[in-house]
Amino acid sequence: MGGTRIKMALLDQHGEIVRATILDAKAHMSMEYRLEELVADINQLKRADYVLKGIGIAFPGIIDFKNKQIISRYVKYPNAHTADICGWAEKHWQVPLLIENDARAALVGEWQHGAGKGYNNLLMVTLGTGMGSAVLLEGHLLRGRNYLAGNLGGHMSIDFEGEFCNCGNKGCVETAGSTWALSKNLEKIPDYQDSSLFKAKDLSFKNIFTAAAQGDTTAEALKLKSMEAWSAAIINLLHAYDPDKLILGGGIMESKAEIIPFIEKRIRERSWLPETGIQITAAVQTKYAGLQGMWQLFKMEHTSFN
Amino acid sequence: MGGTRIKMALLDQHGEIVRATILDAKAHMSMEYRLEELVADINQLKRADYVLKGIGIAFPGIIDFKNKQIISRYVKYPNAHTADICGWAEKHWQVPLLIENDARAALVGEWQHGAGKGYNNLLMVTLGTGMGSAVLLEGHLLRGRNYLAGNLGGHMSIDFEGEFCNCGNKGCVETAGSTWALSKNLEKIPDYQDSSLFKAKDLSFKNIFTAAAQGDTTAEALKLKSMEAWSAAIINLLHAYDPDKLILGGGIMESKAEIIPFIEKRIRERSWLPETGIQITAAVQTKYAGLQGMWQLFKMEHTSFN
Repeated sequence: MGGTRIKMALLDQHGEIVRATILDAKAHMSMEYRLEELVADINQLKRADYVLKGIGIAFPGIIDFKNKQIISRYVKYPNAHTADICGWAEKHWQVPLLIENDARAALVGEWQHGAGKGYNNLLMVTLGTGMGSAVLLEGHLLRGRNYLAGNLGGHMSIDFEGEFCNCGNKGCVETAGSTWALSKNLEKIPDYQDSSLFKAKDLSFKNIFTAAAQGDTTAEALKLKSMEAWSAAIINLLHAYDPDKLILGGGIMESKAEIIPFIEKRIRERSWLPETGIQITAAVQTKYAGLQGMWQLFKMEHTSFN
Repeated sequence: MGGTRIKMALLDQHGEIVRATILDAKAHMSMEYRLEELVADINQLKRADYVLKGIGIAFPGIIDFKNKQIISRYVKYPNAHTADICGWAEKHWQVPLLIENDARAALVGEWQHGAGKGYNNLLMVTLGTGMGSAVLLEGHLLRGRNYLAGNLGGHMSIDFEGEFCNCGNKGCVETAGSTWALSKNLEKIPDYQDSSLFKAKDLSFKNIFTAAAQGDTTAEALKLKSMEAWSAAIINLLHAYDPDKLILGGGIMESKAEIIPFIEKRIRERSWLPETGIQITAAVQTKYAGLQGMWQLFKMEHTSFN
């Protein structure tokens, strides 16, 4: 369940996607109401020749995996933190439910089927509207006492005397290098009114990378600032977890040919990693990693799935 | 082995300190030479009625715990990274040797005998000349692929567009809030020449906290900047590991009555932790935590110690 779209799929006993659909998020609706609406969509996706054994949800927020509750008060899907999600799955299908943070679910999907295959210590960072992150240590998701561990890469302070983030912290990565910070950052660049970006309907990293490639100096400065913020944050995260591999995901990876070498250069210059550095790979299962990750979590949690 | 002093102790089969001594570090000497000098000190500390079963060293640097080698090129004890430490212990006493990063060793000591007793998920941060850190997850030290994990709290970038640190990274915590950064930071404060600190022989946090308490506004500004840097770094680390408890150590803890409430306030205001926050405790075994930690590591690694 994203803020813009909901991707839904039926997976078989081998974790293969049988069929999938994409819906509008309608994230302005309250969580309980939206879930009731989804009942019809789920029933349509189900197939008569398959027995439904469980429902998994990957959700963009802090999730109490054990008690199956949404902890953070995400701006989308109002009242998500009070929704009885387990009760909903029980009432309609009498099946167990799992809910996990979307970055963690995507990481598990990449670990099993994508860029993380064969490695048990992984850091995944998703660059896009915001910045997501998740960590796998010795084949286990790092969750922490309050389910925050590894998930707050985007709210790491990299500018401790800087501006407040809307989360209450100061100088978060997202205040320097996320889509929602772009217009604010644009206006700090001298002569930004001369830039093609000033007239652009919406400001996205795609626009910025394109404009920069066409010689727009404002776009170039914005691009550089974002890449510096990402690099600093990624080096901090690499130092924190020292994983076997770094997986980079998110829409922005369309520009990976530019982004990955930049980050690699900064790691060489500024990190404490040995000269061999670290293997960086773009996420592979960008479309279905979260869905496949939830399936894998069912397999790890419920013996009836093995 | 510190940069200023070497603390040495004989511990019995219960992990109790039988006797201890403190020596000058003489950290300008090469590691191999200094180790040869220490042979006499160790033989003097040994007791005829005890059988020496192993030697443990807690060292301020990045340590390959498995291969018993110093990885980082620490400014003290030149050529420490090429020293054959195992060969030295074998040659003189025919006993096994363990070497671990000093922050990790201290954390294990605190876990077993001090502020971390009863908790298996701990973050320890040491504030002093620099800033050290170490992490225990589910009763295991977090080490990582290159033995960096959890140890680089002091070199986390909290000012990504700021000044270069002597480590090569930009805006490290240590460039904002460590003893060695104080004189540089002092000179950035307007009218610093009017401060009592300007005439002080050496600039230490102790001096600064004392001068601030006496109304010196420059000292107050320096103190505040350091506390803000520590708080931002600690919040980043709490988000990264989400531990059960935070242990604060280091000489600066003499001012814990001022520091801990400040950090707690910032955690309340700026972190994603629930309102219950996190338990923060000053380190207890400040004098011998590293020594006791090394003993515990022997117990965990060598069955003959059980």
